[in-house]
Amino acid sequence: MTLSHSTEKPFAKDLSYLLSTEARSRNESPLKSAFKYYSQPDLVFLGGGLPLATYFPFNKVVAETALPPFQNGIGYVPTTKAETNVVKIEKRLDPNSDVKDIPLARSLQYGFTEGQPELVAFLKEHTQLVTNIPYQDWTLMANTGSTQAWDNVLRNFCNKGDSVLVEEFTFSSALEAANAQSLHTIPVKMDGFGIIPEELAKLLDSWNPDTPKPKLIYIIPTGQNPTGSSLSYERRKEIYKIIQKHDLILIEDEPYYFLQMDVYTRDLQKREQQRNMTVSHEEFINSLIPTFLSLDVDGRVIRFDSASKTLAPGSRLGWFIGQKRLLERFIRIQEVSAQAPCGFTSSIINGTLQRWGQKGFLDWLIGIRKVYSHNRNVTIDALNDYMPLEVVDFIPPIAGMFFTFNIDATKHPKFASEFNSEPLKVENAIYERALKQGCLMIPGSWFVSKGNTSPPQRYILDNDVQNPKIFFRGTYAAVPMDELVKGIKRFAEAIKLEFEL
Amino acid sequence: MTLSHSTEKPFAKDLSYLLSTEARSRNESPLKSAFKYYSQPDLVFLGGGLPLATYFPFNKVVAETALPPFQNGIGYVPTTKAETNVVKIEKRLDPNSDVKDIPLARSLQYGFTEGQPELVAFLKEHTQLVTNIPYQDWTLMANTGSTQAWDNVLRNFCNKGDSVLVEEFTFSSALEAANAQSLHTIPVKMDGFGIIPEELAKLLDSWNPDTPKPKLIYIIPTGQNPTGSSLSYERRKEIYKIIQKHDLILIEDEPYYFLQMDVYTRDLQKREQQRNMTVSHEEFINSLIPTFLSLDVDGRVIRFDSASKTLAPGSRLGWFIGQKRLLERFIRIQEVSAQAPCGFTSSIINGTLQRWGQKGFLDWLIGIRKVYSHNRNVTIDALNDYMPLEVVDFIPPIAGMFFTFNIDATKHPKFASEFNSEPLKVENAIYERALKQGCLMIPGSWFVSKGNTSPPQRYILDNDVQNPKIFFRGTYAAVPMDELVKGIKRFAEAIKLEFEL
Repeated sequence: MTLSHSTEKPFAKDLSYLLSTEARSRNESPLKSAFKYYSQPDLVFLGGGLPLATYFPFNKVVAETALPPFQNGIGYVPTTKAETNVVKIEKRLDPNSDVKDIPLARSLQYGFTEGQPELVAFLKEHTQLVTNIPYQDWTLMANTGSTQAWDNVLRNFCNKGDSVLVEEFTFSSALEAANAQSLHTIPVKMDGFGIIPEELAKLLDSWNPDTPKPKLIYIIPTGQNPTGSSLSYERRKEIYKIIQKHDLILIEDEPYYFLQMDVYTRDLQKREQQRNMTVSHEEFINSLIPTFLSLDVDGRVIRFDSASKTLAPGSRLGWFIGQKRLLERFIRIQEVSAQAPCGFTSSIINGTLQRWGQKGFLDWLIGIRKVYSHNRNVTIDALNDYMPLEVVDFIPPIAGMFFTFNIDATKHPKFASEFNSEPLKVENAIYERALKQGCLMIPGSWFVSKGNTSPPQRYILDNDVQNPKIFFRGTYAAVPMDELVKGIKRFAEAIKLEFEL
Repeated sequence: MTLSHSTEKPFAKDLSYLLSTEARSRNESPLKSAFKYYSQPDLVFLGGGLPLATYFPFNKVVAETALPPFQNGIGYVPTTKAETNVVKIEKRLDPNSDVKDIPLARSLQYGFTEGQPELVAFLKEHTQLVTNIPYQDWTLMANTGSTQAWDNVLRNFCNKGDSVLVEEFTFSSALEAANAQSLHTIPVKMDGFGIIPEELAKLLDSWNPDTPKPKLIYIIPTGQNPTGSSLSYERRKEIYKIIQKHDLILIEDEPYYFLQMDVYTRDLQKREQQRNMTVSHEEFINSLIPTFLSLDVDGRVIRFDSASKTLAPGSRLGWFIGQKRLLERFIRIQEVSAQAPCGFTSSIINGTLQRWGQKGFLDWLIGIRKVYSHNRNVTIDALNDYMPLEVVDFIPPIAGMFFTFNIDATKHPKFASEFNSEPLKVENAIYERALKQGCLMIPGSWFVSKGNTSPPQRYILDNDVQNPKIFFRGTYAAVPMDELVKGIKRFAEAIKLEFEL
């Protein structure tokens, strides 16, 4: 693991002309200018309303985790002290400790809008280990999670009435955030492997010149929500070229990036091999699909990373990675809204990561891969075993928490009659029937980006528009495996009942 | 301490016509509708991307505080186990414990946009102890701090180009947040005791009918930032009547509400009495200036409460109090932005408060009063002792973290000559001179709400517009008292040098 030398690289392009009116109008607080004197020796600083840490009631916080390399698996709960990683954060820094902790007197105080320096430094180093950003003036800024980050991105790049490009099926909260800001979400066609570069090119090349071109595209490249698809490196390169040509900002929302798995196989022997294989850190990193950031010669990608899926959602900690000039505007919006990530999160997560070290964090991520590979295998086995394959098809996901399966709605016996040839009616009938059978999965149409066509024309992830299929999204992340198999069995039963199979 | 019975009270008025276009356009996520099935018995719920808590690395979190009634003061750090309040939060709830803890498996998971139920219940009970809300359908919702809360209020009530009323001098981040949303901040005149009701009435009664009337007013009623002033109960009643007449929403931002102090006295014997007096919870509550909420028969007040000044700023935990119909829109915006307060904060602060109990929390607040009363006394003594009172005057604050003092700029020997009769030039000269002397306080003009007049006409907190004074804001919260006195001495020296006294 060697860090790349960034000093010889070129600088990012100045893309600040793509910022919104709101982003441009934000000023640095004059009070912040006074804060530069805060630590000047022998200056009595009476400038800020910072309550004295002496009166924070919290004298100490201790968090317990397992120790790397997590050889008993990431779900193992240590039973002895020797097995336990104890993260003890005092109010004041222990002068005898060489761990880069964030003392409570600092983390629970105001300040560090961009994130506490020790944590930011750790995450930057982690970023350099897993991706090689082609320009030198990139930076990393902590935020309170990618959902908030997306709302801030919209405010920083879009004016009311603007358009943003999104995947045809996407995270519904992302759509709602955009639509509430009076933005148009324009869907880009997908197949089972994510958005289709040719469709993106066609959409932009044939853009009606009377309407303003979108300034950004929002993509969940790996383990996409809801489809579970992952963009190949080839597609990423093609997509990057297209957004360069059309001068777009690309938001890569990557909460599932480190949930990349072994490839699915029905060969149980091979599977056992995969499971028992010791993967080096180098091999793990090399096995990850390269990020859009690694292609970003211009500085037009903003990456969302997050602790939500790798550590815990309630940590409410995410981070932006992108060019400094653009991220500076995110500091400005964060200092007058969220202010900073929570201090307990900063101290505890930083304390954990500092003790694990970069290698320990990679060990944790490798441990997650094992769990999710197993869960995905169980899922796909169950789909193969129980689903009526004459009407159901699916692609085994290679990343993330979600699986989807397509159902050929036209094969429903009442499709042309009672359902009036409307796939959505079949979808709803299956949803209701599965609920009665005792399993809930989310109908694909709930994730449709409506864009300017209403109702949407497609409910399926292939190019066969003549033959509309529907799909459902399930997750293998949220329940134990016996429960999962029971659920899939029940759902399969519901489909069979509906389709009279 | 008895709780008021709210069932006999009337309902709040429907004021939802005051909501912004953005607030109205927000829909409840269809996915959330599926979540109502989440805990249905024998349903396999594969609907949500909730990672299994088994794989959260945090098995246990422990926080240590002192024990109520904090008889050694709130800054005392316990040295023995018997003195220590240990908040131990496990991943799963201990079935043998009767403390209403929030287990990490829940707090670190997605969910509870409005705040974890145990914490919300505690804060509701606390609210009922200290204020009597005159209508029954009020509620309380957790947020990630009042700065974020204010940004959300603006989005929920204002459309681009709208006006909001603010105090003439106010929290600069609040102004920036509003201005960045293309809103006009219209200043309401203040004196040393907060905004002047007659001036508010005059402003609204004479509103130019061609321009849209403001829909809300933002007030920091107690220990105002920056002026340190507190609105009397009489003024609050008058202001409430005026905003009723003009159909405004009133935001009472009250981070300093529980930092109300004993009245300043130079009588050291009386002061010693105050300090040693045991105050009952009842007496403490009765000594607080009643809230705007307690006057709010219509349901047009939204109160911001916060843990930032009473526990710690980095907790990033605040809460809205107001009528249910309006707060529901804040759930909608929060679920597609911050999602929820941080899980570590929720578990730790709830765990602390549950163990302290309502009485213990009031003990803590009474402890804060003691500290701040003392600090304020030291401050005002120092101002009296060192400031050149021929050009400086001040009102001892009765709440909050800030003190201000006014300086008669016209008495500067170079006022009419070098400074061209411009008070701001005197202000800047004093700021620079004080920096050289080794003390930084913030010039009052940095907090001016410019509104539609630029530059602002007034820099001072009385009605004497003919005799423009300037002021500076200091804090007695952020440094030890010997430092504070040293700072005030230095600042006084700077003024004397400037004014050749």
